[in-house]
Amino acid sequence: MTEADFIALMREVAGTEAARGLYDDAAVFDVGGKLLVATHDMLVEGVHYRASDAPADVAWKLAAVNLSDLAAMGARPLGALVGYCLGEDAWDRAFAKGLGEALAHFGLPLLGGDTVASSTRILGLTAFGIAERAPPGRGGARPGDMLGVTGTIGDAGAGLEAPADSSLARRYLRPEPRIAAGAMLAASASAMMDVSDGLLIDAARMAEASGVSIAIALEKIPLSLAFIQARGETLEARLFAATAGDDYELLFASEAADTPIGTVDDGAGLRLTFEGRPVPLPERLGWEHRGG
Amino acid sequence: MTEADFIALMREVAGTEAARGLYDDAAVFDVGGKLLVATHDMLVEGVHYRASDAPADVAWKLAAVNLSDLAAMGARPLGALVGYCLGEDAWDRAFAKGLGEALAHFGLPLLGGDTVASSTRILGLTAFGIAERAPPGRGGARPGDMLGVTGTIGDAGAGLEAPADSSLARRYLRPEPRIAAGAMLAASASAMMDVSDGLLIDAARMAEASGVSIAIALEKIPLSLAFIQARGETLEARLFAATAGDDYELLFASEAADTPIGTVDDGAGLRLTFEGRPVPLPERLGWEHRGG
Repeated sequence: MTEADFIALMREVAGTEAARGLYDDAAVFDVGGKLLVATHDMLVEGVHYRASDAPADVAWKLAAVNLSDLAAMGARPLGALVGYCLGEDAWDRAFAKGLGEALAHFGLPLLGGDTVASSTRILGLTAFGIAERAPPGRGGARPGDMLGVTGTIGDAGAGLEAPADSSLARRYLRPEPRIAAGAMLAASASAMMDVSDGLLIDAARMAEASGVSIAIALEKIPLSLAFIQARGETLEARLFAATAGDDYELLFASEAADTPIGTVDDGAGLRLTFEGRPVPLPERLGWEHRGG
Repeated sequence: MTEADFIALMREVAGTEAARGLYDDAAVFDVGGKLLVATHDMLVEGVHYRASDAPADVAWKLAAVNLSDLAAMGARPLGALVGYCLGEDAWDRAFAKGLGEALAHFGLPLLGGDTVASSTRILGLTAFGIAERAPPGRGGARPGDMLGVTGTIGDAGAGLEAPADSSLARRYLRPEPRIAAGAMLAASASAMMDVSDGLLIDAARMAEASGVSIAIALEKIPLSLAFIQARGETLEARLFAATAGDDYELLFASEAADTPIGTVDDGAGLRLTFEGRPVPLPERLGWEHRGG
C-alpha cells in the first residue's frame, strides 16, 4: 500500500476538523485558547538517511524535519518527544549527544518519549509548537497569488554526492528549518508548506489541495553559488534541483513575494517554463512514497 | 545499550522541568493555562505483539498503551498522531479499520501522523490529553501511604497462552486503559503510574522514584475468576501475575485505598509477603528493556 492510500483510509477514520495534519504538515488544535501545532515524522535508515551518516547528523535531521513542519505552520517550537530504537552502544551514545546538541541549537526542549529494541532502526520524533494565528495550510492558494520560496533549492540533493565537509553536504546533513521565516510568512501567506520531497511535487500538492494551477518559471528558482559551481544552472540542473527534495525551505503563495518563482492561476496541475518557453513535466516530480 | 542507559543520557540533554516524561509515563506542560499531557509509545512486532496477532488488535493495543499513559497522569484524551510502517495491503487495510474503531471506542480523534516503508514493522503513536490538575507522577509516594491497583492483575499474561476468544486473551489483545479511574485518582493519589511491564517492576520503579520502600502482600493482589481457573491462586500463580505485565491497570499510592495491596514505608526497595511470611524477590520482576 502507498502512503497516499493509507492516508486516504485514515481520512475516513479521522473524522475531525483537527485532522488537517492528514493534509497539511502538522495538526493544529485549540488548547486553552492557544493554537497547538503537533507533528510526527519518522526517519528510516536507508530511506531517509544513509547507514554511513554520522549519528549526530541523523539526530539533527530527525529534529530538523519535524521543526520544518512546525515552520510550515508558522509555529514556534515548544517541545519534543523522541521514539528511539536502541542499537550498538557507540551509535546510541553519539545519537544522544547529537540530539542534545540539535535540540539546544533549535531551542526545542525534550519532554519525553520511548525506546524499543529493533533490528531495523526507525527513529521518530513528535514536535509541538504554538502558532500565533491560524496557519495558512497548503490548501489556501488563490488565483492571482505569487509563489515564493524562503531559500535556495537543490543544495541538499547535490550534497548527497558532494564531499562531506562541503557546504552542499551540510545542507543535506544539517538542514536548518525556517522557523522565523514561517512565523513571519504565516501572517501574509495564503498557503504554505515545507519542501521536503521536492519543489515540483510539493508545489503540485499545494495546487491540488488549493484547487488551483501553479506555474513555475524554472529560471527563477534560487540556486546557491555552490550548487551552480557543482551542477551549473542549465535547465537540466534546475530540474534536478526542483525534484531532489530535502530542501526544508518553505514554499508559499501570497499576494506579493519579493522574488517570486511562479504564479497561481485558475485550473489544475503544475506547469513549468524556462525562460518563457513551456517545459514538459519530468516523469518524477520528487519523492512520492517516502513519507517523512 | 539498555533503555535505562539511554534515558539516563537523555536526562542529561533534556534540561527542562517539563521532561518529567523521562521519569513518568508522559510529559506535562502548560499551554494557555491548561495542563497538556503528551506521551509517545511504540510497538515492535515480535516484542510488543505477536506477528500472528490480528492487525485490528495491534491497532487497539497501540492506542491503548498510549491512553494508559494518559490515564496514569489523570488526563482525558484530546487527540493522537500515528506513525505507521506500510506493509502488505491487507494488513494495512485491516490495521487502518481497526485503528479507526479503537480511536472511536476511546474517543481519541486522529490528528495526523506519518507513514514510512520498512521491512520491520514498528508502530508509534503520540497521544495528547488534558489534566485537570498537576498529575501525581510516580515520584510522590510517602511513608504511611497505602498501595492500590484499579483492577485484576495477570490476566493479560495468562491470556498469552489462552484460547483467542477467552476473556483472558481479550485482556491481552484489547486492554482497556483506566482513563476515568485515573482522572478520579489524580485528585487524591500521592503517586500513580500504569502497570505495563509487571506489577513488581513498576512498584519497584515507584519506590525508587519516590525514595521510599514499598511492601506488597501478594495474597491481596486482585485476581480474576478466569485467571484463578486457569492458573490457580498459589504463591507461584501470584508471582506469575505480578511479573507478567501488559495489565494496563493503574498502580497508586494514597492515604487511603479501598482494597490496598501493600504499604509505603521509609527506606528503599521492594519487599514481598505472602500471608504474613516474607517472600524473596523473584529474579525477574517484569519486563526490563522492552520499552513501551
